[in-house]
Parts: sequence; C-alpha cells; structure tokens
Amino acid sequence: MTSRLREFSLGQLVQTLGGEVAGDPSVTVTRVGTLENAAVDSISFVTSERFLHQLLRTHAGAVILAPAHKDVTAIPRIVCSNPYAYFARVSALLNPVAAVAIGVHPSATVPASATLGAEVSVGPNVVLGENVCLGDGVIVGANSCIGNDVTVGSGTRIFPNVTIYHDCRIGRRGIVHAGVVIGADGFGIAHDEGVWVKVPQVGRVFIGDDVEIGANTAIDRGAIDDTIIDDGVKLDNLIQIAHNVHIGAHTAIAACTGIAGSVRIGRRCQIAGAVGIAGHLSIADDVHISAKTLITKSITEAGVYSGGYPFELNHTWRRNAVQIRHLDTLAKTVKQLEKRLAEIERKSS
Amino acid sequence: MTSRLREFSLGQLVQTLGGEVAGDPSVTVTRVGTLENAAVDSISFVTSERFLHQLLRTHAGAVILAPAHKDVTAIPRIVCSNPYAYFARVSALLNPVAAVAIGVHPSATVPASATLGAEVSVGPNVVLGENVCLGDGVIVGANSCIGNDVTVGSGTRIFPNVTIYHDCRIGRRGIVHAGVVIGADGFGIAHDEGVWVKVPQVGRVFIGDDVEIGANTAIDRGAIDDTIIDDGVKLDNLIQIAHNVHIGAHTAIAACTGIAGSVRIGRRCQIAGAVGIAGHLSIADDVHISAKTLITKSITEAGVYSGGYPFELNHTWRRNAVQIRHLDTLAKTVKQLEKRLAEIERKSS
Amino acid sequence: MTSRLREFSLGQLVQTLGGEVAGDPSVTVTRVGTLENAAVDSISFVTSERFLHQLLRTHAGAVILAPAHKDVTAIPRIVCSNPYAYFARVSALLNPVAAVAIGVHPSATVPASATLGAEVSVGPNVVLGENVCLGDGVIVGANSCIGNDVTVGSGTRIFPNVTIYHDCRIGRRGIVHAGVVIGADGFGIAHDEGVWVKVPQVGRVFIGDDVEIGANTAIDRGAIDDTIIDDGVKLDNLIQIAHNVHIGAHTAIAACTGIAGSVRIGRRCQIAGAVGIAGHLSIADDVHISAKTLITKSITEAGVYSGGYPFELNHTWRRNAVQIRHLDTLAKTVKQLEKRLAEIERKSS
Repeated sequence: MTSRLREFSLGQLVQTLGGEVAGDPSVTVTRVGTLENAAVDSISFVTSERFLHQLLRTHAGAVILAPAHKDVTAIPRIVCSNPYAYFARVSALLNPVAAVAIGVHPSATVPASATLGAEVSVGPNVVLGENVCLGDGVIVGANSCIGNDVTVGSGTRIFPNVTIYHDCRIGRRGIVHAGVVIGADGFGIAHDEGVWVKVPQVGRVFIGDDVEIGANTAIDRGAIDDTIIDDGVKLDNLIQIAHNVHIGAHTAIAACTGIAGSVRIGRRCQIAGAVGIAGHLSIADDVHISAKTLITKSITEAGVYSGGYPFELNHTWRRNAVQIRHLDTLAKTVKQLEKRLAEIERKSS
Repeated sequence: MTSRLREFSLGQLVQTLGGEVAGDPSVTVTRVGTLENAAVDSISFVTSERFLHQLLRTHAGAVILAPAHKDVTAIPRIVCSNPYAYFARVSALLNPVAAVAIGVHPSATVPASATLGAEVSVGPNVVLGENVCLGDGVIVGANSCIGNDVTVGSGTRIFPNVTIYHDCRIGRRGIVHAGVVIGADGFGIAHDEGVWVKVPQVGRVFIGDDVEIGANTAIDRGAIDDTIIDDGVKLDNLIQIAHNVHIGAHTAIAACTGIAGSVRIGRRCQIAGAVGIAGHLSIADDVHISAKTLITKSITEAGVYSGGYPFELNHTWRRNAVQIRHLDTLAKTVKQLEKRLAEIERKSS
Repeated sequence: MTSRLREFSLGQLVQTLGGEVAGDPSVTVTRVGTLENAAVDSISFVTSERFLHQLLRTHAGAVILAPAHKDVTAIPRIVCSNPYAYFARVSALLNPVAAVAIGVHPSATVPASATLGAEVSVGPNVVLGENVCLGDGVIVGANSCIGNDVTVGSGTRIFPNVTIYHDCRIGRRGIVHAGVVIGADGFGIAHDEGVWVKVPQVGRVFIGDDVEIGANTAIDRGAIDDTIIDDGVKLDNLIQIAHNVHIGAHTAIAACTGIAGSVRIGRRCQIAGAVGIAGHLSIADDVHISAKTLITKSITEAGVYSGGYPFELNHTWRRNAVQIRHLDTLAKTVKQLEKRLAEIERKSS
C-alpha cells in the first residue's frame, strides 16, 4: 500500500517469534497476504482444515501453519502451535505503525495545567482540558477533545474526532478509534409527575491497559460509582456501554452490541454482534453469546448462549411467525389431546 | 472526584426541596453514594423493598426513602414521596455543573451574521455557519459545527464534536452529547431503472425544550416536512431517528433503538434499547416497548409490548429454533389430530 | 426555509425532465410539498392508489402522477412512468445545493504534498494528511480529518466531523455525512493463551462512485485485502461494515444494520434496518432482507427473506415465548401422538 516495506527471512522470524521453519529458511517475505490473493513476496497462514485446499493454488511465498499440517505443502513454512496469533505478530513486524509527528501541533489547545509525557504527539486542533495528563508516547489524533482531569496512560493512541469527558481514566497501550465518546452522561432520568428529572451522572469511566475501542462506540460515565472496563478488553464499533457497567478482563465484544446500565460481565467472555444485555444482570466468566441474542436474566455458568430468530423466505416466515402468537394455545391443545388419547387408550386396552 | 465540594444539612435540603427529616436534621452531606459504596459524608437513597437489606450495612451518613420505609432504619433520613427524583435533585445541588469559560474562543469561526446571546460560551475550533442564533447561556463544546441558519435556545449545552446541519432548531435547556448528528439527510432514494436517485431532503429538524440527546445519536432532517422532537424527550446513545419522525413530549428512548421514516410516537412513551419501529407507523401515548422488540404495525392503545426471542444454552436453542421453521406444519398436524381424535371419540362413545 | 427560491413552470419541467403535462403548463411551482401540507406554490406527487384520496383535499398547485392516475384529478399535473423518481429530480431543480466557499480555509491543515483539484472547498479546521488527493469540486466539511495517502474523487462532498483513515479511496460524486468513520481498524484479534493479540489491519477501504454514507456509519479497513463498496451503494446512518466486506453495486442498506467480516453482498440488494449478517456469508444479487433479520447462512437466490419475532402485548408475549423453550419437546409429543393415534385408528378399523 505504501513504500515502508520491511523484509524478513523465515529464519529471522522464528528467531524473533519462535516456531520452526520447514523448507528453505532464507526465503524472505515483505508483506502478509490471504492464501487467495497473496503474491510471491507474501506470507500467509492456515488456521483450519477447511482452508488447506487453498494451499494448492496460492502464490504465497511462505505460510504459517500448525504441526498437524506441516507436511501438506512444500511451500516454505513456519510451523507453530497457534498460526493465527503467530501471523498477527508477523504482520506487526512487517507493518510497523506509521510514525506520527512528535510534539504539540500549534493549532492544539493545551492549557498550562496539562502534563505531557515524553514523545507525546498532540495533533492539529486537539483540545485538552485543565489538568489533563498524557503518559509517555501518547498520540492524540486531530480534532479530538479531552476533558478536564483526564489521565491517558503511556503508549495509548487516540484517533481523530474522539471525545473524552472530564475525570475519566484511560490505561496504557490502549487504542481509541475515531468517533468514540467516553464519559458522556449515562441515561439517568427519574420520573416525576409526567416529566423526567435528570439524575446527575457523577461517576467516571475507568479503562484498563491494552483496551481497544472501535469507531463510534460510546461508553457512558457512571451515575454515582464508576463504569469500569478491565485490562485487555476489546470493543468493536458502534457499541453502547451504559453507566456503571463493569466488563471483566480480556472480554471481547463485537459491533452494534448494547449493554444496559449496571451490567457486570465476567472475564474472557466473547459477545457477538448486536447482542443486547438488559440492565443490572451478571454474566459469568467465559460466557459466549451468539449474535443478536437478547439476554434478559443473569448467566451464572460458562457456556454458549443463543437467542436469534431463524430467518426464512418471507412467505414461509410469515406462516410460521403467525403461529408464534398461538403457541401457548397450541401447547395447551396438545396437552389435552394427550389426555384424551390416554383415555381412549385406557378404554380400548 | 474533584474538589468542588458543597455541603448541605438535611434540614437545608428539605427547606429547598420539600420532604421531611427523620433523625438529626443537622447531619451534613457533601456527596451522593450508592448504599453499597457510600462514605459517611454521602447521602444515598432507597427506591424499592429489594434494597432495604442494604441499609443494614451501608456507611451512608443519610438516606432518602419513601414514607413506607421511614422506620426501617435509624440512619438520618429524608422521607418523601418519590425518593429517586428527590435524590436526582439533591445530586444536582451537590454536583453543580462545572463552570465553562464564557466568550468566544479565538480559534472558533464565528461569522458576523451570527447572533450570540448573553453569557454564551463558544469553545475552541467551533464552527458556526451564517445567521446562527445562540440564545443566552448556550455552551457550544470544542470542535462542534453548527450549520447556516440554526437556532439554539437559551441554556442549551452542546458537547464537543457535535454536528448540526443547516436550518435546524434546538430548543431551550437542551443537552446534546458528543458525536451527535442533527439534520443529516434522511435516507430518501427513489428507484429508477436499477439505480438510486437521491431525493433532496429539504425539511428540517425541530427539537423542543428540555430535550437530552445521547452520544453519537443521529436525527435526520425531514424529506419535505420536518422531523420533530417535542419538549422533554430523552434520547440515549446511538439512536437512529429517521426523516419525518415525530416524537411526542416526555417520551424516553434507550440506546441502539432505530425509528424508521415518518413514524409518529406518542407522549410519555418508554421505549427500551435496541427496539426497531418500521416506517410510517403510529404509536399511541403511554406505550412501553421492551428491549429488542420489532414493531411492525401501529399501536393504538397504551400498554406494554414485547417481542424479544428468549435465549437459551446454544444446544437447546438450536433444537427449539429449528422447530420454528416447522411451526405452521406442526399447528396443522395438531388440528388434524384433533379431528381424528374427535372422530374416534365419537365412534367409541 | 430559506430565500433561495427558484421557479419552474410545468412546461419547463417536462422540457427538462420528460413526461407530459395535463392541465395548464404555465402553472409555476417554487417548492415541493407533501399532499397533506403543500401550499399553492408547491408541487407534490402520488406514488400509490393509497394516497389518491389525499388529492381531494390537497392545496398543492401541481402534482406528479402515473399514467393510470392521469384523470383522477383536475389539478395541473405531470404524468410520467415513475412519479417518485421524477419528483426527486424536480426537487433537485427546486432545491439546488447551497453554495460553499471555494478554497482552503486558513485554519485548515494542508501539507504541501496534498493535491487539490479545481474548485475544491476545504473547511475550517480540516486536517489533511500527506499526499491526500482531492478531485475537482470536492468539499471537505469543517473539522473533518483525512489520513495520509487518501484519494477523494471529483464532486464528492464530505460533511463535518468525518474521519477517513490512511490509504482509503472514495469515488466520485459521493456524499459522506457527519460523524462517518472510514478505514478504522477491523476487529481482528487472535486468541493466545487467554489474551488477545491484535492482528494489524493492513487492507484499505475502496469506495466506488455515487455512494452515499449516512451519519455515524463506520466502515472498517480490510485485515489483509480491502473492504470494497461498489458504485451506487447507499448506506443509511449508524451502520457497521466490518473488515473485508464487499457490497455490490446499487445495494441499499438501512440504518442500524451490522455486516460482519468478509461478508459478500450482491448487487441491487435492499437490506432493511437493524439487520445482522454473520461473518463470511454470501448474499446473492437482488436479495431483500426485512428489518431486524439475522442472517446466519448464505443466501444463494434472489427473494425476500425475513426473521423478525412478532411482537405482542407483554402478557401474551410472555405466555407464548415461554413455549418456545419447549418447542422441540412439543414437536416430539405431537409426533408420538400421531403414532399412538394411528395405532388406535388401525385397531378400530
């Protein structure tokens, strides 16, 4: 895509990342590729039996694969226990993050009370509030706004057009993509004689280390106590995290999911896209939730949970969906049929 | 969180907000807390029987509760008819909105045709279009853009990175959170021989007084007539309001909900998260809709409506969901069984 | 709404756009209106039998309708085969896009390496990266950020607060609404001993000509290969397009829909709001998908597909939904009843 090409031999890769070379270790690669579209200077990977047949037609100069597949191809290859994670690390070597200009752009607004670490980059039109503290190596992208008393840990990158409200804390080595809003008021409103009274949202957002937050995701500040995102959590785009949610370490959540207020999610959960979790529920560690599932009660045990309605051709769907409105009646009818049938069977026996 | 502490005695609170003190009225509080985490200088609240047991262990210096619970604790307390709304007002007293710098930041773009009321705050890099009119006390957060001929009523606060397109009107005392887009083109496209022709969106967005709009929510301008959000409406984050929607006063809508074009929603409705309402429908006043429900026909009577698919462990879900595809056949089978059984019963009687 | 009024006679309109006048061709119109709210200087339209009755009470000075409806009214009218598309074109004539200031605003950041075509408008606080190339007539709205090596085709309009990451390509005559994020990292994470390893997202986003993208929509860059949006695609607000998705030409997608990674969608599809499509699936050309449907396997034939759960009054829903958890058992019971009944019938015959 650009000219910042790097080159590694397979030998160099295993020296750096482990694993073992099968075939010529002096073969060099300069970029990553899919089996389907790789060029001869590319390294690709195989994660599953399903894709083995693509090895026959790939132009990749090298591949990463598991010990079980070591001998299915003669392409120079790296054999390792977790080819996808290995590939991720190779890709990081081949595609270093583009350098950004260190320093504060003259158009940025940085009050004297702000504390900036070493090698910080503050882009054009960035607006920092009072007492903002940016750790070493923090990058704040153009046109982002960071409120009073916010702390951003070292090595974190904030992309353009991000808004972080006052008093929040972002950990180290985080990635906050464009359009993210952290610390806006939670949806706290009290009903009073037909109108709504705003409940001031005086909590904060605390985000741990190594957290990535996708584009246009919103994480609300706590109503009283704080909203907490633990270390290593990965959030995709357009996710809603309501006030006082607590997400356990290393949980990953896919796009368009909404987590209602005060939900507590365990560690290492995997939550697919467009899931909804109702307020005040608890989700145990290691829970997987399938796409578009609505969670309406707490989940106390690890496992895979689902609740998507099956799709069909519209005219079939129409016929089946209408029966859902009569399901209770149908179940009762069947129960009565059972009784009547048992009665007949009794008589005729 | 910060040092802008205020202090009120219970006696002072009831003088300002009504209600009655039980216990020592000279007890002072400086902040709000949950029963669980409150400190001795905190005031907390109880809204429901369910939480009464927490009174035994709370460190809160004072609590707000309903007359029915007046005697369940000896903690100094305020007794009132709506503890949650009362708490909201106490919290507002204890947590005044932080002051912002009055005036126009030198980096803002403000054309001569703009009209600015008294005590207006226009933040860094704000861009106002021609003839923009900001009422008294309006705050426009950093990096927000307001299009030509927009009017913003007095006391409204616009957070950073908000975009308001031309000709829209925002009422008084509103709150518009970061990332909100008001007045973008509705999704108006006309099919013409395999391609789409854009239908110019020439309506506007009219937003009443006391409306709060959550982070990254989008409210499209009308196609011909206007999109209208009435007084006191509360919108959470990441909501889609399509062109020509009309939302009645004091309706509240939770995050991730999408309202399609020309929907008319009544007054005082409560719409939960991730609800979808199909185009051109009408929803009566005082309708409540549960999370993730898809509304496909108009609702003419107040009530609670639901349509979420129940979730289960994946392997159970799988077995049940597959039967949905045969539900119509199952219903027909049961009908036939009934007939056959009736025939046998007739014969054997 | 504003004073930039234009005026056309019906005769002039058919000269420019085709169709035929019925009634007085010298009647002039200055704006568009709905049948319901049109004023005497407005032109309105009828697309369906359902709305014909509104012709009796409309104040519209002229209407656009189909040949079949030519004689149902005496209002001066334009008769054409596709009244809605015709109306769209009339509205475009009557409502020309407001002119924007040509040139680069002094507060914009434009490196020397950027290439700007003729009549380009770069708004206040816009930040362009290195080697950005803007075609003739491109408009970049205030506070938008465009990364290194991005190309934007001629005639494309980018609204305020948009973020485009490095290396992406936007085609000609596109419209990118406020808050859109193009080219953020896809959600590529590899599991490795309990933690997530980021998979660098080194692909790009390629967007064809005549594509419109709604407010706050996010389109992720490819993981290895590119994410591709073909010519004429129309995307509504708050849509998630994951990495390596390919959307075929002239497909339209409504708000709140999420498309997971590597999905391939055909040409001329119509996807309603809040649809979810699981990863790696293929959708054929000319497929229509109803609102809130979850697509869990590939669709190989054109047609209308649905999967929304029917909504009901909460207490009815509760009774029916609980039976879904027993549907598999119910189906088995019915099967056994059939057997037992057949046995009895056999015996008694």
